[in-house]
Amino acid sequence: MIMDTTEKLEKLHALDRECRHLERVAALLDWDQECYLPEEGVGERAEQSALLHRWAHERFICRETGDLLAGLGSGAATPRGDPSLPELEGDFVALLWKKYDREVKLPGDFVASCVRAERLAQSAWARARRDNDFPAFLPHLETLIDLARQRAAWWGYEGSRAYDGLLDIYEPGLSQEDIAGVFSPLREKLSSILKEIASQPPPEDAFLDQDFDPDTQRRLSRRLLEVLGFDPRRGRLDESAHPFTTTLGADDVRITTRYHRRNLLSNIFSVIHEAGHAAYEMAFPPEIRGGSLADGASMGIHESQSRFWENVVGRSRPFWEGFYPVLLGFFPDQLRGVPEEVFYRAVNRVQPSLIRIEADELSYSLHIILRFELERSLFSGDLSPADLPQAWARGMEDLLGIVPETDTEGVLQDIHWSQGAFGYFPSYALGNLYGLQFRKKLAEDIPGFEEPVRNLAFGEIRRWLEEHIYRWGRRLEPAALLRKVTGESLRAEPFIDYIEGKYGALYHLPVSSP
Amino acid sequence: MIMDTTEKLEKLHALDRECRHLERVAALLDWDQECYLPEEGVGERAEQSALLHRWAHERFICRETGDLLAGLGSGAATPRGDPSLPELEGDFVALLWKKYDREVKLPGDFVASCVRAERLAQSAWARARRDNDFPAFLPHLETLIDLARQRAAWWGYEGSRAYDGLLDIYEPGLSQEDIAGVFSPLREKLSSILKEIASQPPPEDAFLDQDFDPDTQRRLSRRLLEVLGFDPRRGRLDESAHPFTTTLGADDVRITTRYHRRNLLSNIFSVIHEAGHAAYEMAFPPEIRGGSLADGASMGIHESQSRFWENVVGRSRPFWEGFYPVLLGFFPDQLRGVPEEVFYRAVNRVQPSLIRIEADELSYSLHIILRFELERSLFSGDLSPADLPQAWARGMEDLLGIVPETDTEGVLQDIHWSQGAFGYFPSYALGNLYGLQFRKKLAEDIPGFEEPVRNLAFGEIRRWLEEHIYRWGRRLEPAALLRKVTGESLRAEPFIDYIEGKYGALYHLPVSSP
Repeated sequence: MIMDTTEKLEKLHALDRECRHLERVAALLDWDQECYLPEEGVGERAEQSALLHRWAHERFICRETGDLLAGLGSGAATPRGDPSLPELEGDFVALLWKKYDREVKLPGDFVASCVRAERLAQSAWARARRDNDFPAFLPHLETLIDLARQRAAWWGYEGSRAYDGLLDIYEPGLSQEDIAGVFSPLREKLSSILKEIASQPPPEDAFLDQDFDPDTQRRLSRRLLEVLGFDPRRGRLDESAHPFTTTLGADDVRITTRYHRRNLLSNIFSVIHEAGHAAYEMAFPPEIRGGSLADGASMGIHESQSRFWENVVGRSRPFWEGFYPVLLGFFPDQLRGVPEEVFYRAVNRVQPSLIRIEADELSYSLHIILRFELERSLFSGDLSPADLPQAWARGMEDLLGIVPETDTEGVLQDIHWSQGAFGYFPSYALGNLYGLQFRKKLAEDIPGFEEPVRNLAFGEIRRWLEEHIYRWGRRLEPAALLRKVTGESLRAEPFIDYIEGKYGALYHLPVSSP
Repeated sequence: MIMDTTEKLEKLHALDRECRHLERVAALLDWDQECYLPEEGVGERAEQSALLHRWAHERFICRETGDLLAGLGSGAATPRGDPSLPELEGDFVALLWKKYDREVKLPGDFVASCVRAERLAQSAWARARRDNDFPAFLPHLETLIDLARQRAAWWGYEGSRAYDGLLDIYEPGLSQEDIAGVFSPLREKLSSILKEIASQPPPEDAFLDQDFDPDTQRRLSRRLLEVLGFDPRRGRLDESAHPFTTTLGADDVRITTRYHRRNLLSNIFSVIHEAGHAAYEMAFPPEIRGGSLADGASMGIHESQSRFWENVVGRSRPFWEGFYPVLLGFFPDQLRGVPEEVFYRAVNRVQPSLIRIEADELSYSLHIILRFELERSLFSGDLSPADLPQAWARGMEDLLGIVPETDTEGVLQDIHWSQGAFGYFPSYALGNLYGLQFRKKLAEDIPGFEEPVRNLAFGEIRRWLEEHIYRWGRRLEPAALLRKVTGESLRAEPFIDYIEGKYGALYHLPVSSP
């Protein structure tokens, strides 16, 4: 039977949708494990998850996929396939080729054993974090690092290049040198502003150290999602130890948060952050729905969205001018007599702290730079996993001037490594940089775009994001998307300028020379 | 390569476990749909579910399964395989043979279209029930009945035998005539007791018509599960429109309930009922864990467990002697001045009502007999689906003397048909019968077994159930299990005797002649 191009494309789309369904189901298993799975169910869940990932993998790398891609003219030298394909189909074929080329190189047994090891490591990590017991987690970590190195090797990244192979999963096209190139001025500038701020009096925030009833916080979260335009018919909010967003279907995007009695801000900014991810996931246009193109351009671009909403919008003065009266309705006793400006200053308090996800907007990127440097050393072989706690302490001292007393507050704080996600961390700081490059363009396109925010009206911003970013899904790699939107390549200056401007004003710092 | 018997058995077990994993994952999708899935996510979830069921089906009916079963000497004439197999392995081979013989006869496309149709019907049913709109559900119902008929036909059950094929899914070995044979005396006797009771004054229960805060009910549920020995590390309690139990892993058994402000008993007895199912699912012995043998002997036997706990234990005087003081702690205002005996009489109030799952212990089986007779007529062709509402009304009038004013309170009340589960309903009443046959034997083995229940001590009962019922899993078909435990075949008398004794005393009825 001879198929024409249209038939081949249809078959490839059908196959892609089938694999996406399996990925969504696997994501449901993970979501459930984070939010609802009974303690003793972890072992069998790991088996279920491994089986499903293995099947999705084997289905995708079947001969049919290879034949269809080859039949469409796609290959290492011509990933976009036949040049006569419409642009959208060329983007689709290129994405599937890359995915196929990656997956076909991994044996099914290897994929299954990675998933199994990750699931077991994850519950070992949760216990180790609870018990401040890094040695209990260490063997799992060593296994996962070995597996990650093997994965990179299957893809042709040997020796110290292994880390580039892992980075490419999350930030296609960016090497460790590229990242080091933008992190270096960032590190220098943020450290210097941090030092200047340390000599200033801190803003008043004693009123945050009160009891904020979790049930009231839960109601507040619903209100916040409503304000942000999160559609509850197409998504959910649940609770997990580590907030995250997961997409279980085009109309089923779920976010999580967590509630601490004595930390009101943790939940508020988690919800805004995750709702930023969800806004992206919910807005892919019909022509790419349900397939692999309906995804973020990269983890860094995804973080540019969550962090844009969390920080650029959510920690801005106009936002609090609009939302503070709402918040007062939920916690009138705790916030009695606290003026909005004081609250705004408190949510932007800069203070080096141990925990990444509680960090302020300024020192946050320094937490990421620490992790990037540690990962780089782990994969170059300069650092052994057993020495991580010490290296962590040295890095914290160096970057933030503080040292954790426990591993729970140090190397065990994040879930990522227990999920085998090495190379993921840089995305967060890259998200800060992309986000401010986007914001610069947004401000040029729509001068005064922050005005409606005072009335909690986000339509204009959302439409701009839809038109310039969301609608592309994964059609463009991050560098190409960035160039299309801003005309620029990745750089740290817009973020640095924004930080200098905002925190210079907040802390009355001397204006730096240009 | 020549495999010996041990190798073949190992391979068959591995294959079985793999298919079980997929069934568990499919069950997670269903659980999530009932408890958490956002409204708009239903369509894509149906696709995911259909894909997964299809894969599980195709995996199971692969050539390997057929070859392994044949290699072990299993076939239509010799389902248990080679007679030299150890008994446990013979049971395993026989069960897999039956499953294989059933599934191999169904085309993959057919399986996927059933699942898809069921998922869509389920959400159409939920809307139709909400809007009292039977016509909106009718086309889905017709499709599902056609599919069920086709399914039975693939298995060789043609024409009016179709219903036998469906019954065999839930109650292996029982025909519609077998069931009619026990339902007939049951119908007669229950109707006559019901009439006698109608002429007696009803027990006092006005105190139940009060506001019972759902959050307090939620806390009460946790306490109840604790009392019943439900292990929260191996299961969960969630909320859904229709309470159910689902097993997502040997150590992940989930139950659901629902909360109504003005109905305290609905939640209490749902929790006890579902915890009865869960006790069975959580107690399969190690030698059958993770495989197809780790399942209830049938739906009827499963219901015998849930209904035993709900009614025989949960609506007994000793239980309330123990639990009423606990309940008082949760609702002291609402139950002030209500003596335990009055409460006990109220939970056993007999009153014909429209809704099956709210029915009392006595009239409950009449609700089932109605559904059994309707299903039988639907599949014999004597009743067309469009005429169900009228047939429902006539049946209710006939059996319970009342008629629903809306389809929501009538033919649309249950989820089962929307799931394509025709032939499932009889299990509930069969469960009543099995349960009381078991209870008779339990009382012979352990005279005074109800004494410790006054102290909420259920260890002795649970151990007896484990030893006589749970440990067999699905190794025996229901008739064989019943004979092994009680020495009897299925009969209605022990249940009728129990009802006569209990309600005769409660309502001071004249003692019937033996």
